[in-house]
Amino acid sequence: MRVQKFSDNLAYSCWLGYREIKNKDVLKEYRKAFSCVAVINKTKIPRAALDELKYGIGKMLEKTPRFVDYINGDGIIIGPADSLDMLSSEEINGIGGEGYIIKNDNGRIIISAKTGRGILYGVFSFLRLIQLERPLSSMNVLDNPLNMLRMVNQWDNLDGSIERGYAGRSILYKNNKIVRNKKRVRDYARLLASVGINSIVLNNVNVHYHETRLLTERYLPEVANLAGIFREYGITVFLSVNFASPIELGKLPTADPLNTAVRKWWADTVKEIYRHIPDFGGFLVKADSENRQGPYTYGRNHAEGANMLASALKPFNGIVIWRCFVYNCLQDWRDRATDRASAAYDNFKPLDGKFLENVILQIKNGPMDFQVREPVSPLFGGLQKTNQMLELQITQEYTGQQKHICYLVPQWKEVLDFDTYAKGEGSTVKKIISGRLYPQKYSGIAAVSNIGDDNTWTGHILAQANLYGYGRLAWKPDTDINEITREWIILTFTDHPEVIEIIQSILLNSWRTYENYTSPLGIGWMVNPGSHYGPNIDGYEYSIWGTYHRADCYGIGVDRTIGNGTGFAGQYHKRNAEMYNSIESCPEELLLFFHHVPYNYRLKSGKTLIQHIYDTHFEGVEQAEKFKAQWLLLKDHIDPERFEHVLNRLNIQIKDAIEWRDVVNAYFYRKCGIPDEKGRIIY
Amino acid sequence: MRVQKFSDNLAYSCWLGYREIKNKDVLKEYRKAFSCVAVINKTKIPRAALDELKYGIGKMLEKTPRFVDYINGDGIIIGPADSLDMLSSEEINGIGGEGYIIKNDNGRIIISAKTGRGILYGVFSFLRLIQLERPLSSMNVLDNPLNMLRMVNQWDNLDGSIERGYAGRSILYKNNKIVRNKKRVRDYARLLASVGINSIVLNNVNVHYHETRLLTERYLPEVANLAGIFREYGITVFLSVNFASPIELGKLPTADPLNTAVRKWWADTVKEIYRHIPDFGGFLVKADSENRQGPYTYGRNHAEGANMLASALKPFNGIVIWRCFVYNCLQDWRDRATDRASAAYDNFKPLDGKFLENVILQIKNGPMDFQVREPVSPLFGGLQKTNQMLELQITQEYTGQQKHICYLVPQWKEVLDFDTYAKGEGSTVKKIISGRLYPQKYSGIAAVSNIGDDNTWTGHILAQANLYGYGRLAWKPDTDINEITREWIILTFTDHPEVIEIIQSILLNSWRTYENYTSPLGIGWMVNPGSHYGPNIDGYEYSIWGTYHRADCYGIGVDRTIGNGTGFAGQYHKRNAEMYNSIESCPEELLLFFHHVPYNYRLKSGKTLIQHIYDTHFEGVEQAEKFKAQWLLLKDHIDPERFEHVLNRLNIQIKDAIEWRDVVNAYFYRKCGIPDEKGRIIY
Repeated sequence: MRVQKFSDNLAYSCWLGYREIKNKDVLKEYRKAFSCVAVINKTKIPRAALDELKYGIGKMLEKTPRFVDYINGDGIIIGPADSLDMLSSEEINGIGGEGYIIKNDNGRIIISAKTGRGILYGVFSFLRLIQLERPLSSMNVLDNPLNMLRMVNQWDNLDGSIERGYAGRSILYKNNKIVRNKKRVRDYARLLASVGINSIVLNNVNVHYHETRLLTERYLPEVANLAGIFREYGITVFLSVNFASPIELGKLPTADPLNTAVRKWWADTVKEIYRHIPDFGGFLVKADSENRQGPYTYGRNHAEGANMLASALKPFNGIVIWRCFVYNCLQDWRDRATDRASAAYDNFKPLDGKFLENVILQIKNGPMDFQVREPVSPLFGGLQKTNQMLELQITQEYTGQQKHICYLVPQWKEVLDFDTYAKGEGSTVKKIISGRLYPQKYSGIAAVSNIGDDNTWTGHILAQANLYGYGRLAWKPDTDINEITREWIILTFTDHPEVIEIIQSILLNSWRTYENYTSPLGIGWMVNPGSHYGPNIDGYEYSIWGTYHRADCYGIGVDRTIGNGTGFAGQYHKRNAEMYNSIESCPEELLLFFHHVPYNYRLKSGKTLIQHIYDTHFEGVEQAEKFKAQWLLLKDHIDPERFEHVLNRLNIQIKDAIEWRDVVNAYFYRKCGIPDEKGRIIY
Repeated sequence: MRVQKFSDNLAYSCWLGYREIKNKDVLKEYRKAFSCVAVINKTKIPRAALDELKYGIGKMLEKTPRFVDYINGDGIIIGPADSLDMLSSEEINGIGGEGYIIKNDNGRIIISAKTGRGILYGVFSFLRLIQLERPLSSMNVLDNPLNMLRMVNQWDNLDGSIERGYAGRSILYKNNKIVRNKKRVRDYARLLASVGINSIVLNNVNVHYHETRLLTERYLPEVANLAGIFREYGITVFLSVNFASPIELGKLPTADPLNTAVRKWWADTVKEIYRHIPDFGGFLVKADSENRQGPYTYGRNHAEGANMLASALKPFNGIVIWRCFVYNCLQDWRDRATDRASAAYDNFKPLDGKFLENVILQIKNGPMDFQVREPVSPLFGGLQKTNQMLELQITQEYTGQQKHICYLVPQWKEVLDFDTYAKGEGSTVKKIISGRLYPQKYSGIAAVSNIGDDNTWTGHILAQANLYGYGRLAWKPDTDINEITREWIILTFTDHPEVIEIIQSILLNSWRTYENYTSPLGIGWMVNPGSHYGPNIDGYEYSIWGTYHRADCYGIGVDRTIGNGTGFAGQYHKRNAEMYNSIESCPEELLLFFHHVPYNYRLKSGKTLIQHIYDTHFEGVEQAEKFKAQWLLLKDHIDPERFEHVLNRLNIQIKDAIEWRDVVNAYFYRKCGIPDEKGRIIY
């Protein structure tokens, strides 16, 4: 068996660089133990898993293992669970559909699973243990993913652009065609599989002219080729579809989901897709949102819209993922009663239980739109009889666009751990989306990818950690984020303690740092409209988008309380509703999301609100400067390419953080006239 | 001689509709007097003049005159001044190079001039007199233009877009080619000639990739064709050039104006242009401005840059028009010492007297950029030994983009009448640019055109008045604007007294109305960045563009005084400097341009500044609503196409004016907390 070659470029390899083991003792032990690999029942083992094993061990041990049919002494045995007699029935029963077992069987390492996906994940896990230099004796893992669907959404357009992409152009499309050279697609599939991602939506949720035609004979053969590549890595493909397709493609006069001809058109179209891609996953749909057509266009509700597509997909076990990002995007800023935050709940809660069993509602983590800080969407815990997925955003649309470091794993962890109290204490989001709180046929987690054709994949080397962490967290939301972070650093860079400590410190402080110098206390949005980059305090204040801070010379914040405000706080279950509704108990990082607060209001720190704004903005810049100082200490431990890359980005971050600080502080100082207690310069 | 046909569409014909004369008595008199035209020395008379005469009289009198070689009794005699014996030597001496005479010689009408241009202008003037139904006996006019260059600048790009164009696409270019069908170009030349425009710059001052190549063999033959069309109407063509052309086209390593190879390249290039267009006018140059290359790129000054081009053009009597729109467009908003308003003077005043005699400096009316209200540029009166042109903007970049009515002729008139006191009282801008204050070999007036391929030419029927008025004012800046306005209404619509009164009232109030609901008292800039349409109070406040209002909770305005401020006021001659420098004597409409003023400051009206802001914004909307009420009264007097067109635009204007009012008022109310004395709703 030949050795598959992957790129040696460190920026490009991400966490799969398979650095040679430096510790002599460990290396000696590993070399002895992993010189042979016995492959049992080879036809059931994904080729990609064996390629990876050979390549990974070969690189880390600088010695390629021999692949054999059986081994007597030391070695690795890889095979389906039902073909191996060294696993107990208890162990076999413990392995889930996509889980795996790694077992030290008297010095021999068994890697096994019940499916090809499981084997793949087992191999990647095993290689991770090697890179982490775990003692052979500790190599005993029985690991099952908690979430069924672990998905990435590509917001890629066929012209090669990526909506909210900050790492170059699409790796999938160019000039309204699917790319001819698919090497990079394969490399991406491998990266995704290595962290347990099992599904992908291939195109942007905003489905334009050309993307609408992905469902047609013109594109389907090439979509099938993409699906083939992802299939090798255990990844199911989905497409985003245009609700108006029956009109645009089918020449029908309507796309009304209750219209017979429309239903037939979708049924025929789905049949055709499955002829090309027998394991096609299904559709992702953005309907009745931001000027896209949807069931409302025809006086129908979202259940009627989604169920129509679900009926077409059902015969093939396909599913419909229906986004809940629906709100009035023609709002009048003068209107203080309408609240965009309430929209998803208002639209979907009344439909709970009305969706077919192969429909999943995909719900953004917060009620607005991926701001640096938002409360968790009240649809989680609100919906009780509907399949649900959580939607996160790995691409840093509002969090520095991969020019700034903003490690989002801690944010996601907070969302996953959030207790909705829907069925009493412990009704966390992670329990809901993994189907452990309510029975759901389908559930899981999705996230908008942050990759493009940049050599670093993610535009910023440290943003690779977000993709890695997303996969790891999607696999098992209970994982300790310190562990994920540490793991990523070692896999990506080195296990040198100083490097680990510094990068961990930078990453784990980065979200708060970004928050410090941008919009304060959950208010969000103070960005340039359109680009969403850089400060513009009133940028969305007099707009149609429902995105207001309501700052005046006395105070700032949106009153979303139940009595005097928009009532949004009342969408939560009682305990959370009460917590948010009271200015005393509302978590301070969300204070301005729920309350309009005077500048002289005293926070728990004893500081006034305005002093808090000034202080955090000065602190944010200092922290960004500290990141740079810390990074500079790593010069001798990081290869020059990646060292310089991060340094350049840090310089941009500092420059931009200063701009943020000065604009935000100047805006509020000019508005309220209250000077900084510490007498620092505010312009 | 055949009758040339022009479009009958009223929106398209603008002021050249040549409506039939309704007054029976006048018609009878005219028909008798204008039945024959004797053309003397025909080869010296522009064909376009005779075509126009025949077409215009034919339409207005519904009877085409006969063209003959001589007449005995009634009729029109047209011919060169030196070929007619019925003109006195005094009269002949009184006719300038581009002037004309219309003389009632015992009932016969003589139209004469010394040049083809003069004849053309005489014919258009005569046709205007007919449309205005002037008695035959009063047809005695000796008219010379006061300004030598009367120019329009097209900001058209070769791809067909128009920078700051609001009336469709370019009539000159499409898909990086010069248009094949040039009918519209000819119609435009005719419109321009009818109001005395004698020169045109064919392309945008921002000279991009393709436009740079207009100087090459690829485009020159077609540019020559355009020049040929404009020549028929007495219009000289100029091109905007890229200062970096020697690099981009000539493959030279530099565009340094003192480099011999660069100078030779330009000399050769100019020679080649004149081979194609023997009467080519010269170059318009935007250099060292908004990221364009210029002499500063090579450590040279603007005189060295301009003179280099002037030397190349001199052998062919070509001229260089060098724009003074030079400023630091990477300013730091924190910096309160640097003042964009001072930049043009700072850059060019030290070079006064250093330019060759075929260089003209083209100076924008104000020191900023075509805001609704600015003081006059202090370069007027500052420069005393340099050829000068005034640059105006007909296209309504900052004044409603031809969706709003903003009749700019009164603004231009104020600029022209502004007394710089450079040589004592009476040193007005109009005297300077007409070469009457200082001897200048070349001088004049230019304006950025407002036309595109929209059927109305200007996007808004009433914006045609701006093009018309510009031409009339450029011809003779002393003209009463009431007269120009009245003339335009009669030529364009009708002489019905109610129509004249209403449209005149709308037009003459429109600039103040637009000012009322937009940015107050000369502060400018409160627009959406980029588009320059719609309110965005802080849109340019934290930007790099040097465009700040410095509003805080106490007051607003930029201190440009000599003592405490940026010192800009000191760039004017003493009397104006003193006037602007004192908050008491500063004209109130420019108060915030020169002073930072507390909201509770009492204006001469007795109102506080903040109350003035509230009041003018409410008034502005009421005035826009009144425009609509007035326009509705005209339903029976205006053709449905133009009536509906203007009505639709008025509806947009009212809607947008309300948005302006509410955003501006909310912004200031939120900032200062001072309520409206009249208790109106502010959001």
